[in-house]
Amino acid sequence: MAEKQKKRTEIAELGEFGLIDKLTAFAKPSRKTTLCGVGDDAAVIEASRDTAIVVSTDSMLEGVDFDLTYFPPKHLGYKAVTKGISDIVAMNATPEQVTLALGISSKLSVEFLTDFYAGVEFACREANIDLVGGDTSASLTGFIINITAVGRAKRRNVVYRSGAKPNDLICITGNLGAAYMGLQLLERERYVLSDVKHQQPKFEGYEYLLERYLKPRARYDIIESLAEEKVVPTSMIDITDGLASDVLQICKSSKCGARIYLDRMPFAKQTSELAEEMNTDPVVAALNGGEDYELLFTLPLEARDKIAALGCIDVIGHITAESAGAVLVTPDGSEIALRAQGFR
Amino acid sequence: MAEKQKKRTEIAELGEFGLIDKLTAFAKPSRKTTLCGVGDDAAVIEASRDTAIVVSTDSMLEGVDFDLTYFPPKHLGYKAVTKGISDIVAMNATPEQVTLALGISSKLSVEFLTDFYAGVEFACREANIDLVGGDTSASLTGFIINITAVGRAKRRNVVYRSGAKPNDLICITGNLGAAYMGLQLLERERYVLSDVKHQQPKFEGYEYLLERYLKPRARYDIIESLAEEKVVPTSMIDITDGLASDVLQICKSSKCGARIYLDRMPFAKQTSELAEEMNTDPVVAALNGGEDYELLFTLPLEARDKIAALGCIDVIGHITAESAGAVLVTPDGSEIALRAQGFR
Repeated sequence: MAEKQKKRTEIAELGEFGLIDKLTAFAKPSRKTTLCGVGDDAAVIEASRDTAIVVSTDSMLEGVDFDLTYFPPKHLGYKAVTKGISDIVAMNATPEQVTLALGISSKLSVEFLTDFYAGVEFACREANIDLVGGDTSASLTGFIINITAVGRAKRRNVVYRSGAKPNDLICITGNLGAAYMGLQLLERERYVLSDVKHQQPKFEGYEYLLERYLKPRARYDIIESLAEEKVVPTSMIDITDGLASDVLQICKSSKCGARIYLDRMPFAKQTSELAEEMNTDPVVAALNGGEDYELLFTLPLEARDKIAALGCIDVIGHITAESAGAVLVTPDGSEIALRAQGFR
Repeated sequence: MAEKQKKRTEIAELGEFGLIDKLTAFAKPSRKTTLCGVGDDAAVIEASRDTAIVVSTDSMLEGVDFDLTYFPPKHLGYKAVTKGISDIVAMNATPEQVTLALGISSKLSVEFLTDFYAGVEFACREANIDLVGGDTSASLTGFIINITAVGRAKRRNVVYRSGAKPNDLICITGNLGAAYMGLQLLERERYVLSDVKHQQPKFEGYEYLLERYLKPRARYDIIESLAEEKVVPTSMIDITDGLASDVLQICKSSKCGARIYLDRMPFAKQTSELAEEMNTDPVVAALNGGEDYELLFTLPLEARDKIAALGCIDVIGHITAESAGAVLVTPDGSEIALRAQGFR
């Protein structure tokens, strides 16, 4: 088959985000039931005059998103569900159903899959959601997990990335960087163990970090609390790619800037301790680590008291005009431009 | 890490269907918005008092479900959409949205992905559906496609696998086995080409078979025709695993038997011709081949005239009592028990 040499452009030349923007440019919704298409945490679909269904899909690939040498299958099943429903929560919707499509290599045993599904079941019961479908294929390579999550919200309560306004408060739940430090710890111990046989990994004192990486919980509790306080954020996203990348997503969608104050960023004690032990900075873990599955959202200034009453939410900055850019403000007042960096 | 030897059971010992039944046994729906969970072509979720949303998810893995040495990327994008929406159509629902989650290896170029998305776009426009979301990951191995499809139907019109009744007619759209013969042809030519350089593959006269394998079209036209005739099937499934397996799924869900008449099975001329050339039987391709993306459905006897008027539907048998089993009846009147066999 003689053929002219075809042009070949490497994907790295465009980068993931550039590529997907380019390729899905055609995807302007034509159905009137499509309330929001490509470009947010989840798609929003009309259910009835006042109700919307939100749908999100995510993949987790062995060797890229997880390493089975230290990821217990039960935790992996739990985390897959978290990854799915966190996107639904980030739309201010209640997750109700998930489906799982798995690619299963012959390396995996029935016992492995039983443990994996035990984790799926645990996460589903905990969050009160139903596993409603799935698909399994043989995989010639590694274990492949795809999770699709479905949720529901009043249409007027759906929160997009695009609604932030100058002077809005930038709020964050929980703390940042813990999952990334948990991963660093696991990688360090794997490296140590590969050298010396029968040594026990040193995890004492860092159990919280491992849990944040291996068994993160989606913050559906927060959207329930916000609903009780009758607070609807102006924009929201879940922290999966690191604070820097996720703040920039809000800025891009809302056409605004942001000021994040470094000394307002919340860290767990163990995050700071391990960072010190490993000669790294917890701020780097927070900005670029990702996989926190915490919520980042914006609120009008007047909601400050209601948020303070909830207790588990920190105000870390505020929204500015687009021309001001997205910056991190250090305690001495200097400004560093936020830059997106993926996880690993 | 000294550890007791753990029990290991190979997945092959249980088989895919047995395994999934076992592992998803916990998945009894607890949400009242879950109208149908695991076990049909798609999950059915309440949208409003009279409307349902149906959701289905499927994976296609390189080296298992497709071979990039002969699968043009544009066709692959088209087929991924077909695979997704065919499940929605099989619930008698109208497909409206799809999301795509891709695992992309560095082997793939931007040009490849551009062609792939061109096929996705073409299929979306043709079927009037919106691409509403997605996710891309780096894949260390092959190209991984996951498609989630969303559709809509009046709740009273949703058709499950479980509603077939004795004496119902078993109907089939289009013809059977063509996609499987197309795949056989591609595999044969790949083998020939690997031996001798610069030889042209011999596809002349079999273009229809290639199209049925590489670019199958979901039968959304049929559910529109049925709606116009005010016909609601008692059960329905799309033919993806071969007629035998899919008839058995209807029988299992509906707790019934089936009689399929061999001389009623519809074949395309090219299917029979290539089968003869390759010394195989088109009946085998129809029973075990799969990937036809035609619809198999059952109807009460009194709907026979309406179906005849539509023209493109064949009655190939009827439903019987469960005790009679699912059998293929040959022209001489002998009966062969149907047995499920996956594609490849």
